Amino acid sequence: MPTPALPTDPRDLRAMMRRGELSGLTSGMAPGRVQANLVVLPREQAFDFLLFCQRNPKPCPLLEVVEAGSSEPRNMAPGADIRSDLPRYRVYERGELVEEPTDISHAWRDDMVSFLLGCSFTFEAALVNAGIRIPHYETGKNTAMFVTSIETEPAGMFSGPMVVSMRAIPQDKVVKAVQITSRYPAVHGAPVHIGDPDAIGVEDVHSPDLGDVARVGESDVPVFWACGVTPQAVAMASKPPLMITHSPGHMFITDKLNEDVAAL
Amino acid sequence: MPTPALPTDPRDLRAMMRRGELSGLTSGMAPGRVQANLVVLPREQAFDFLLFCQRNPKPCPLLEVVEAGSSEPRNMAPGADIRSDLPRYRVYERGELVEEPTDISHAWRDDMVSFLLGCSFTFEAALVNAGIRIPHYETGKNTAMFVTSIETEPAGMFSGPMVVSMRAIPQDKVVKAVQITSRYPAVHGAPVHIGDPDAIGVEDVHSPDLGDVARVGESDVPVFWACGVTPQAVAMASKPPLMITHSPGHMFITDKLNEDVAAL
Repeated sequence: MPTPALPTDPRDLRAMMRRGELSGLTSGMAPGRVQANLVVLPREQAFDFLLFCQRNPKPCPLLEVVEAGSSEPRNMAPGADIRSDLPRYRVYERGELVEEPTDISHAWRDDMVSFLLGCSFTFEAALVNAGIRIPHYETGKNTAMFVTSIETEPAGMFSGPMVVSMRAIPQDKVVKAVQITSRYPAVHGAPVHIGDPDAIGVEDVHSPDLGDVARVGESDVPVFWACGVTPQAVAMASKPPLMITHSPGHMFITDKLNEDVAAL
Repeated sequence: MPTPALPTDPRDLRAMMRRGELSGLTSGMAPGRVQANLVVLPREQAFDFLLFCQRNPKPCPLLEVVEAGSSEPRNMAPGADIRSDLPRYRVYERGELVEEPTDISHAWRDDMVSFLLGCSFTFEAALVNAGIRIPHYETGKNTAMFVTSIETEPAGMFSGPMVVSMRAIPQDKVVKAVQITSRYPAVHGAPVHIGDPDAIGVEDVHSPDLGDVARVGESDVPVFWACGVTPQAVAMASKPPLMITHSPGHMFITDKLNEDVAAL
């Protein structure tokens, strides 16, 4: 859990990040608010990436696109600034991670297009509300993430493997977990795989490629959801000249309520 | 109803259209198959339009985007050719309708990007299957369509009014009609308005702007759904240099089953 002294209003949290006072994982912050993955690309690559999102809605569910010339997501968080209001970013040049700053104003250009993608923190809250325990959610740790053998649907210059997040779900709650997350297509929706890690190229479910280890108990089933870190795996595979993302687990906290993005 | 001699296989119907043997309305053809609206734009306008679709998923639900250099929708209809396999097209230059040909090979360029958008024919089949009568569906006529006072969410150069289709639904079936169409977000989904035509700028429900008159009886409620003709109203308002669409009611018949595009 974040320290009890933290504000719960997204605007206050973003202001702290803007001032450089908050640069850690956002898991558990601003309960009930939608958190988002970030991808920033020059306009020249923006059509290909927008099409990539359209073709891969599970890993890349679009919440908002901020066009070139602006850094304010007016729908999800009016008044916010993409360049400073996340705790930590990653800057990739030709697929190489070159820095992990807490502000990207120095790397910003007027032709930058920003994409906010749904994040599984939203459906984790719904799972917890339904009595399904998500240990890392309660402890402020990061989800266990794996690069899989599932290929995304390519679009223009973008292609690469799908990244998934894994949660250990008690056997008798698996159906419920599918039903609940199906209600949230804007934040990855239903799982992409249930059960056998090998079937999707995950060798050891206790050795995540990213994030923290999540223990799968005797009576648990490992359930895998498409993950918003996929664009970072795709960036490494596709090597666009410049691409900026959030740092895994260091999300953009929007003003929207989780229920605002639930399917009807 | 189309004449009983017509084939029901989408490939056979498209081949007839390609040979110029079929150029009429497609309502009721190939029962159970998804029919699609078409928008074709040069690559220069394609990002703005893709973003327009992302921001306006009810009028513009994307089924497939065919990138520049190809005219084959490989996912929805492998082997088909966008340039010849619709019964009739509309060509707009700077917002003016300049021709309504049965083939667009002469107007095609290598930089053309094609967008296939969901069409309400899919959910009409589901309504009929649920015992809700849709008179124009049974008689092979066109839906009644209206240009409304609802503004679409602009994206880049694209903006303009939303076009809706209207169906007269018996009062005791309105809830059912909402539930059924909610299952099909890929083909316009739930209604955008129920009841008062005035509230969305429709003056006379018996004088459609496009399509055929649909009679609203004493115990009927007029129910309005977002319509895939919206891009044509937007084309007229936004005046892109060149834009090609299907002619209203003259849809692209895909290989996909209606149930393939139902929400989970």
